[in-house]
Amino acid sequence: MTDCILCNETGGELLWQNATCRVVQVNDPHYPGFCRVIWKRHVAEMSDLSTAEQVHLMSVVFGVEHCLRDLLNPTKVNLASFGNVVPHLHWHVIPRFSDDRHFPDAYWATPLRADAPAVSCPADLLATRLLVALQGCSSFVSPT
Amino acid sequence: MTDCILCNETGGELLWQNATCRVVQVNDPHYPGFCRVIWKRHVAEMSDLSTAEQVHLMSVVFGVEHCLRDLLNPTKVNLASFGNVVPHLHWHVIPRFSDDRHFPDAYWATPLRADAPAVSCPADLLATRLLVALQGCSSFVSPT
Repeated sequence: MTDCILCNETGGELLWQNATCRVVQVNDPHYPGFCRVIWKRHVAEMSDLSTAEQVHLMSVVFGVEHCLRDLLNPTKVNLASFGNVVPHLHWHVIPRFSDDRHFPDAYWATPLRADAPAVSCPADLLATRLLVALQGCSSFVSPT
Repeated sequence: MTDCILCNETGGELLWQNATCRVVQVNDPHYPGFCRVIWKRHVAEMSDLSTAEQVHLMSVVFGVEHCLRDLLNPTKVNLASFGNVVPHLHWHVIPRFSDDRHFPDAYWATPLRADAPAVSCPADLLATRLLVALQGCSSFVSPT
């Protein structure tokens, strides 16, 4: 897919990767710790993956969630896979806080607090924590 | 959790269930086939489940996705677990169409086509198809 942005670009600051997927930090200063987990091969839907691939990808997504909870203690974690604009399989993992721009509405809704302050979460700290949290995921290779 | 709506109510028209989770049809006439997969026990996050429970719940979510793709041939399927308002673990499985109210934006964004027509997907048809699609999921019992 030569015109797919997630086939051609990293899609954010690279935090972790293995043979099948990568975790990037999303550049949104109002959402510290917002990560995307991107499947490297160009497929659109979870049900396009084999069962082993589904289980593996979700173990990375839930590993990222667990890591972000430990690090940031968010009010809630939001998980989503849409791909309406870029139909290349990727998951949003968004730590949510009761005073963030949209809470309790979805990240994609109209902001309720447009003046919420920016909060940083250094990429190198995230990368270090993910290296430990995703240790069990590093060696997976798709059987297909 | 006596005040949790998903502990006290079905949360939609019941289509399928086993010991751990249920699938309901969401009452939104603009989104035919919109289902929710609701974990029965009151937990907030996927990382509150054991690995076996995570794998099982997602096999139901992806089974619903697969079934809806077969039945409705949507442009895309959207998957999301938020729980900001009701922090009781549940997944939205939303067949999306290029002419639906929000496409390509998220279901939770401001509608782009407020006049999109209602489209029905009969609950009994969905229930019949899910019974077959989720056959392998019916006997799961949480080890915890």
